[in-house]
Amino acid sequence: MANVKVQVEPVAKASGDAADELRSVYEDLHRNPELSFAEHRTAGIVAERLRSLGYAVQTGIGRTGVVGVLARGSGPTVLVRADMDALPVREQTGLAYASTATGIDPAGNEVPVMHACGHDMHVTALLGAAEVLAGEAAEWAGTLVLVFQPAEENGGGAQVMVDDGLFDRVPTPDIVLGQHVMPLPAGTLGAVAGPAFAATDELDIRMFGRGGHGSQPESTIDPVVMAAATVMRLQAVVSREIAGAETGVLTVGQIHAGTKNNIIPDEARLGVNIRSYTDSVRERLVGAVTRIVNAEAQASGAAREPEISRGDAFPVLVNDAQATARTLDAFRACLGDGAVIEVPRLMGSEDVGNLAAAAGAPLVYWLLGGADPALFADAALGPSLPAGVPSNHSPFFAPLPEPTLRTGIAALVTAALTWLDDPNETTSKGER
Amino acid sequence: MANVKVQVEPVAKASGDAADELRSVYEDLHRNPELSFAEHRTAGIVAERLRSLGYAVQTGIGRTGVVGVLARGSGPTVLVRADMDALPVREQTGLAYASTATGIDPAGNEVPVMHACGHDMHVTALLGAAEVLAGEAAEWAGTLVLVFQPAEENGGGAQVMVDDGLFDRVPTPDIVLGQHVMPLPAGTLGAVAGPAFAATDELDIRMFGRGGHGSQPESTIDPVVMAAATVMRLQAVVSREIAGAETGVLTVGQIHAGTKNNIIPDEARLGVNIRSYTDSVRERLVGAVTRIVNAEAQASGAAREPEISRGDAFPVLVNDAQATARTLDAFRACLGDGAVIEVPRLMGSEDVGNLAAAAGAPLVYWLLGGADPALFADAALGPSLPAGVPSNHSPFFAPLPEPTLRTGIAALVTAALTWLDDPNETTSKGER
Amino acid sequence: MANVKVQVEPVAKASGDAADELRSVYEDLHRNPELSFAEHRTAGIVAERLRSLGYAVQTGIGRTGVVGVLARGSGPTVLVRADMDALPVREQTGLAYASTATGIDPAGNEVPVMHACGHDMHVTALLGAAEVLAGEAAEWAGTLVLVFQPAEENGGGAQVMVDDGLFDRVPTPDIVLGQHVMPLPAGTLGAVAGPAFAATDELDIRMFGRGGHGSQPESTIDPVVMAAATVMRLQAVVSREIAGAETGVLTVGQIHAGTKNNIIPDEARLGVNIRSYTDSVRERLVGAVTRIVNAEAQASGAAREPEISRGDAFPVLVNDAQATARTLDAFRACLGDGAVIEVPRLMGSEDVGNLAAAAGAPLVYWLLGGADPALFADAALGPSLPAGVPSNHSPFFAPLPEPTLRTGIAALVTAALTWLDDPNETTSKGER
Amino acid sequence: MANVKVQVEPVAKASGDAADELRSVYEDLHRNPELSFAEHRTAGIVAERLRSLGYAVQTGIGRTGVVGVLARGSGPTVLVRADMDALPVREQTGLAYASTATGIDPAGNEVPVMHACGHDMHVTALLGAAEVLAGEAAEWAGTLVLVFQPAEENGGGAQVMVDDGLFDRVPTPDIVLGQHVMPLPAGTLGAVAGPAFAATDELDIRMFGRGGHGSQPESTIDPVVMAAATVMRLQAVVSREIAGAETGVLTVGQIHAGTKNNIIPDEARLGVNIRSYTDSVRERLVGAVTRIVNAEAQASGAAREPEISRGDAFPVLVNDAQATARTLDAFRACLGDGAVIEVPRLMGSEDVGNLAAAAGAPLVYWLLGGADPALFADAALGPSLPAGVPSNHSPFFAPLPEPTLRTGIAALVTAALTWLDDPNETTSKGER
Repeated sequence: MANVKVQVEPVAKASGDAADELRSVYEDLHRNPELSFAEHRTAGIVAERLRSLGYAVQTGIGRTGVVGVLARGSGPTVLVRADMDALPVREQTGLAYASTATGIDPAGNEVPVMHACGHDMHVTALLGAAEVLAGEAAEWAGTLVLVFQPAEENGGGAQVMVDDGLFDRVPTPDIVLGQHVMPLPAGTLGAVAGPAFAATDELDIRMFGRGGHGSQPESTIDPVVMAAATVMRLQAVVSREIAGAETGVLTVGQIHAGTKNNIIPDEARLGVNIRSYTDSVRERLVGAVTRIVNAEAQASGAAREPEISRGDAFPVLVNDAQATARTLDAFRACLGDGAVIEVPRLMGSEDVGNLAAAAGAPLVYWLLGGADPALFADAALGPSLPAGVPSNHSPFFAPLPEPTLRTGIAALVTAALTWLDDPNETTSKGER
Repeated sequence: MANVKVQVEPVAKASGDAADELRSVYEDLHRNPELSFAEHRTAGIVAERLRSLGYAVQTGIGRTGVVGVLARGSGPTVLVRADMDALPVREQTGLAYASTATGIDPAGNEVPVMHACGHDMHVTALLGAAEVLAGEAAEWAGTLVLVFQPAEENGGGAQVMVDDGLFDRVPTPDIVLGQHVMPLPAGTLGAVAGPAFAATDELDIRMFGRGGHGSQPESTIDPVVMAAATVMRLQAVVSREIAGAETGVLTVGQIHAGTKNNIIPDEARLGVNIRSYTDSVRERLVGAVTRIVNAEAQASGAAREPEISRGDAFPVLVNDAQATARTLDAFRACLGDGAVIEVPRLMGSEDVGNLAAAAGAPLVYWLLGGADPALFADAALGPSLPAGVPSNHSPFFAPLPEPTLRTGIAALVTAALTWLDDPNETTSKGER
Repeated sequence: MANVKVQVEPVAKASGDAADELRSVYEDLHRNPELSFAEHRTAGIVAERLRSLGYAVQTGIGRTGVVGVLARGSGPTVLVRADMDALPVREQTGLAYASTATGIDPAGNEVPVMHACGHDMHVTALLGAAEVLAGEAAEWAGTLVLVFQPAEENGGGAQVMVDDGLFDRVPTPDIVLGQHVMPLPAGTLGAVAGPAFAATDELDIRMFGRGGHGSQPESTIDPVVMAAATVMRLQAVVSREIAGAETGVLTVGQIHAGTKNNIIPDEARLGVNIRSYTDSVRERLVGAVTRIVNAEAQASGAAREPEISRGDAFPVLVNDAQATARTLDAFRACLGDGAVIEVPRLMGSEDVGNLAAAAGAPLVYWLLGGADPALFADAALGPSLPAGVPSNHSPFFAPLPEPTLRTGIAALVTAALTWLDDPNETTSKGER
Repeated sequence: MANVKVQVEPVAKASGDAADELRSVYEDLHRNPELSFAEHRTAGIVAERLRSLGYAVQTGIGRTGVVGVLARGSGPTVLVRADMDALPVREQTGLAYASTATGIDPAGNEVPVMHACGHDMHVTALLGAAEVLAGEAAEWAGTLVLVFQPAEENGGGAQVMVDDGLFDRVPTPDIVLGQHVMPLPAGTLGAVAGPAFAATDELDIRMFGRGGHGSQPESTIDPVVMAAATVMRLQAVVSREIAGAETGVLTVGQIHAGTKNNIIPDEARLGVNIRSYTDSVRERLVGAVTRIVNAEAQASGAAREPEISRGDAFPVLVNDAQATARTLDAFRACLGDGAVIEVPRLMGSEDVGNLAAAAGAPLVYWLLGGADPALFADAALGPSLPAGVPSNHSPFFAPLPEPTLRTGIAALVTAALTWLDDPNETTSKGER
């Protein structure tokens, strides 16, 4: 057990109070989601609130990113990160505070927008932690850097902030912390030491046929059939080319072709997302997509080769083993032994590792349960979700605000205090 | 041989003059295409021109339809029809007068628009015929009804005009005439007696999966795979369920699912277009789509049944056998024997038959060649196009204005005169 | 109406008598079917019977072929042909005389065998006609050549007989006649003038993967998936590359891969059969198979190119237009007007045309109805069969012996007499 | 480190001598493979050799199984097992002693047979160990039970031996030992403690169409398309329904339909093999096959439901953790530290666990490298094989006899001695 010096009860109480107070902020953020790099309203709310708490605030880092810094004497620099962006999903939760918002996607189309990945919870919990850590319940020495990052979903906002001079503008951290709300029982949390989130690669594919009248397929090369055959063939990549004991996921998240039932269009577009934990699997998956897309174009007799462009790519997220163990110990001490659960490594991806890599600092990134615990009654925690628990990115994704927000705030505060110095001690934690 | 009384030489000359004069109108219409029921600008140009020629003009019949009536004493009533609407296709002809226009499709999206089916040629040729028939080159008795119809491509504009009281507003015709520009050698034309254009049916299909994160397919039901499997299965309908000697076409002209590569969407949409010449084939095709769509949803374990809604449906277009023979005789007499070619019956569809059906009148609807004759040098006319000849609905579809426009005007004038009375005779043609 | 000199009533009576007598021969042949070039027992029965009727018999022409010649003075030479071979189908008719026979297929496997295409009916009817024409009911002058051909189904027996010197051994005919039993109402018959049976091509395909353990697909290239993807893709050839108004059929009649569920095999085999009526369609179908098979091997990353070998190929069967009209007139005169029905041209193929081509003689090949007429009560004759009527090659194919056999004998006799000379006339038919 | 009392040098020398001597036996067995339950010749060779070494031999246990028992005073009973059967694979190794043998598969067809899974190596190595353990190099007390099992590949021979009274006929063991040759570097070996081989399930599927003539698909229901669509759909089970972090494999190892290219057959057969490590995955995989097979039959409009029958099923093979650790320690001591490598758990399956389960004894089952070590030079050991290393069940599978046989014998002897008593000690190992 680590030598945890967190003031357990005051932190718990202050976290609960902050959660109550911020409930309306959470609902407001949920109702007003913004797409990647369009988090203007969210950034404004964050900046105003941080300023009112006494943080030195900088905005516009990495286009819409916001950073608040609070220094209390000498000691370690601890960076805590929340991501702010939402997704082009039409919300179907039926919540009173459900989103009806729209946004403009990268292709210029107006699309429905929803916080279907819980970044609103991340923002609210970090605002709550900002409040607790700025208040009297928390005693610490060092420098606190709160990063509200744009564009985790689309565009690699972490790297964009780094490239925009983040660590020229704020102190370089000794550790990077953060959390992600997940369909685990609300009130629990957990982290995998080592590789914890998969690498992700995106491929945007255009396949070219030859358009014509829907009644005269013989004078066309039908890109709808070409694309459908490709989708079916791509299913055999994971089923046939990746060993059962390896982990890889290949999703065709988008397929689009045609404007009218009686016109055979000129081309089809596929959007592919790939997850892997090793370079070998990654290369095989990407290579198989390229091979299949080209061959299916040939099977159709296409005159023009498909175009395959690489989109966002995140590396595997690796939690520092020692730092993770110490942080989980602190969680057990402060939130109770039962709050910390075993969690599997995920096929999801995260770019928070780019902040840690740029800083040369260890990373501890944990999962925060947000789902109704009653739904887990009969189910062991495993790679598959129990019935009725919506996954992230689902139009039904809806973390329970209570106790998720309270637990999320307490976890952030506990983790930060674990890595900041105790002003009542003479030895800096950073020196251990 | 019919007893053709068309004044061949004056008509030929007047048609050529009209074609020269209207060349700029054709290019203007081509540059400014409008989608179905949005033909406001086109209708305005048509109405103004008809009025200036002395026709009694009514607008707004069937939303954007225009009708011009010219009466010259007693005699038969002859209806000549052109359709006005364009298609959601991004023009790639490279013509100086190519379209860069956009429009709003039925789903509310802004889409590129192109005259990819030659309705601009139909409008211009009928304006030219209006001019010739209103002038001194043509001698006739009877009533001429020129119909400029909206929404042939989408929405069934012919029936909409009928339902809007077309034949309460203008005299009911004794015959209905019209033409369609096609990838046949420019300068030629032809018609099939009897069934000549296929019946068409449209099915709009929604298939329901269950959305989620692209990295967690196991907690979703992937509608992209469901839709792709359906498209592949639908190919086996024509290949396996329709006899080689029967004619049927089943095109999936649209497939759409997803907004982002790393989100598995909730549903996929397919747009199907079906062509047939008999009720038996039509029923088998529609039935097979329904059977396959439902079964593929079950194969995916979908919780919700697909929705299949019927869209536009046109019946088989049937040319009156005797009237067609007489009209083709007139074409041979006036345009030269070589101008009239054998043409196959088409898999395309047309709603002009709805005007004839509502009037209880025979129909003669011919095909007008618009393609470069040089490309046909080595190729027999057949169901397949020679290399380099773009089909209707292709983004490369581009009839040669000369001689297509001239031939089109002459054909319309000739056909109209064939069915109007000769004022120098004592017997009405209608009485023969 | 042709000047038919057939002695209608005696022929009808003699045909009925022969049918009654030969009923047991038919059932015996049906019970003892033999595969292509293995028609030893059948040939023996045929030869013995022909000899007993007074024909000069030669056997072993084209391996198992039998020819009987009967000359009655000078006059035209008329060749009438029946094919003898059966199919590797497990009979499921439930008939008392159903086959339980087996044979050895070209790959050396023992397979069930069935007369699923009615060649037993062809043989029996021609034996019946041989009897009638050798008897007193028929008066004629000329030379009758009855050909019992092997291997129509597999191996091109007609050409093999020609190549084996058929027309060096027997007189070259002035006309070639024959019939095929079909699922048309029993008691009827008909023929298409001009192209009547489709061309056929066979492609035998080997696709090469890399075998391995069923639990380790990642170390293999799975030929089962490769072949299945190819089959699905091949469905899009007819659905997308052949115009609705063209006729083409592409069937994958065989797919074979693997010996054990837990071994991924090294290769898969596909057997493809193609039907067409024009060279253009034929070339497009064959070309598309080649293109798709190669591309699907590449989509799988196959190290070795597929092997595609051409098997049997028959050209389009073309009935001589004038000769067909004259023969149908004779059928109407002798069998009744109602017996001759309109029939569509077929997607099936026949090699009897090779006999006519080698002889430089016109061909008349008609369809003989064998199905229960009651099943056609509500159905128009068309390209699709009424419910409950099994097609040729079905394991349920079972022509009604009565009246099919009687009609078949009468038709053969009538047709032969139509083209032989009438000994009571002074002018030879051949001179007309 | 265990207290290993194996006489390292004498055992190594005796194992090498035995390997040299048995090289010809190995080649003979390889040249004469026998299918499951047909291992008559192999069993005869085994029985004769065991008898000549002084073992009490029983044959015909579980049809073709052979057991040799050698008792040396009181002490533990140690069962060592080798499996004897080969596979229906056509050998392509090009070895001088390659098989050209054939056998009769369960369907009654003659098929090529090959030792493509190395059971010939298992048999030879156990004969070598029998010799060493019966000789003077090995000192031990207890009872040695050598089981030569039939039908590991097909038919569940281990359970058949148990059901045939194996443990009524020979002493019930205190431990069960065995090995499997694998594409790991020859000279190495390894074992996973805990779950080590996957569960396997086999499904034999018949899908029913309606046969007919290849030119008339419209009158049939094509089972080739039905089966191909099913195969493609089944690829989406692993790719979409099993989480990236779970392990599951679904192989269609057999697909068979049709006898002739121009006949559409009545049915198609699929042979499916499934691998899993948990009940949840197992149930999802089997359930998905059932769901998809039924739905694809409906998509084809099949009149008859598919038949799905369950074949062989083995549970997960679980190595006893403590016993495995102790055995691996002995391997390190006797064969060298470098000989024992980390190996992954496998997707392959094994029924040796049924012997341990029936005896209530712990199991230690290790992997024996048989591939050319040079091929592993640049490749980390992982779930995927380096290029050029054929997997088990491949027609190219060919373990290097040297040093594989020597290492295999030494490993079996070492493991057996580890669990037998040392006659020079007073404490039985069994009592520790």
